[in-house]
Amino acid sequence: MNFTKEQLRLYLVTDRRYLEGRNLIDVVMQSIEGGVTMVQLREKDITAREFIELAHALKTKLSLYNKNHSLHIPLIINDRIDIALAVDADGVHIGQSDMPYEEARRLLGYDKIVGLSVENLSDVIEANAVDVDYIGISPVFATPTKTDTALPFGLDGLRSAVNISIHPTVAIGGINISNAHEVMQAGADGIAVVSAILASTNPTEATKQLLIKRS
Amino acid sequence: MNFTKEQLRLYLVTDRRYLEGRNLIDVVMQSIEGGVTMVQLREKDITAREFIELAHALKTKLSLYNKNHSLHIPLIINDRIDIALAVDADGVHIGQSDMPYEEARRLLGYDKIVGLSVENLSDVIEANAVDVDYIGISPVFATPTKTDTALPFGLDGLRSAVNISIHPTVAIGGINISNAHEVMQAGADGIAVVSAILASTNPTEATKQLLIKRS
Repeated sequence: MNFTKEQLRLYLVTDRRYLEGRNLIDVVMQSIEGGVTMVQLREKDITAREFIELAHALKTKLSLYNKNHSLHIPLIINDRIDIALAVDADGVHIGQSDMPYEEARRLLGYDKIVGLSVENLSDVIEANAVDVDYIGISPVFATPTKTDTALPFGLDGLRSAVNISIHPTVAIGGINISNAHEVMQAGADGIAVVSAILASTNPTEATKQLLIKRS
Repeated sequence: MNFTKEQLRLYLVTDRRYLEGRNLIDVVMQSIEGGVTMVQLREKDITAREFIELAHALKTKLSLYNKNHSLHIPLIINDRIDIALAVDADGVHIGQSDMPYEEARRLLGYDKIVGLSVENLSDVIEANAVDVDYIGISPVFATPTKTDTALPFGLDGLRSAVNISIHPTVAIGGINISNAHEVMQAGADGIAVVSAILASTNPTEATKQLLIKRS
């Protein structure tokens, strides 16, 4: 598995609720044209069959794009290790309520990326004891995307988490064009966004602007 | 995998909504004391972590029971192949909206049981083309347990499905003590129930009565 922390630069996490009728794969590919470096399919309220069809279709488009541009933008599946295995995705992202890390790693092996959400500093310390590929520090700010999230880290908490972690880090939760710069200043290797790209009427441009601001 | 159609005789499918505060594992073990021959954990609205913990705990109890009684009551996981793999369950049960059969089989291999729900005769014919271990004919009658089910087969439809199928069959949906006998007369190898056992204040006795009626 050739994962590097540079792939965390701008990480798009999906949520079809922001699409207002647009096709998810189209919007993801538009964001990739803008420079997204990693994609996570996080779809709830969807059957396994729909999830697999979506993941298959995105993987096909993404593989072609990667090949044509000599890139490696990984496709990550949220929570469902079986779906990641079925479509041969690049990895999974698991949260504290998902399958325990050790079991996910055992099922996926070391050729796949396994990312783990941490919700507080104690989770960061626990993550240091295992060989996750990256941690998602979540949420940095209060966010409307997820309703089940823990208290926000804030910028100070993010800085502490980054300092404590031995793993590459991506910050997520309420990150947009107005705060991307200060999040990066706090030391994260990258930012993950949902609505900042998906809710934009121009995902390519929104992505480009985020990349400018974050640098 | 030493699955036989006799294991389908009386198949318990779980749904915590019927428990009214009782512990799921206690109720399942009470039904096993009564003679349940196969158990499927079908739990929605639960995190993967909770599902795994539940499955681990049930597997431990069930393995001990099987050992002490020289039985092999299989533990089947609904939908989530990853959870079945994580806990080394005996197999999975998948529906028409879950992972396609071929992918599930590829992930699980032939040492595991894979059961498939069929919702109409055309599904039965399609299932004949693959090597599923059994089919769940669903629903036989209208049922309050699942809200997303197809039109009921009825007894005539069940009879047709059983006649067409080359696989062992278990009938599910609205089966209880008052209709268990006629369902078995229609030719199914077994019956699967949810509320007929789980909603009973005496799951052991409810199971025994179902076994008497079905024979």
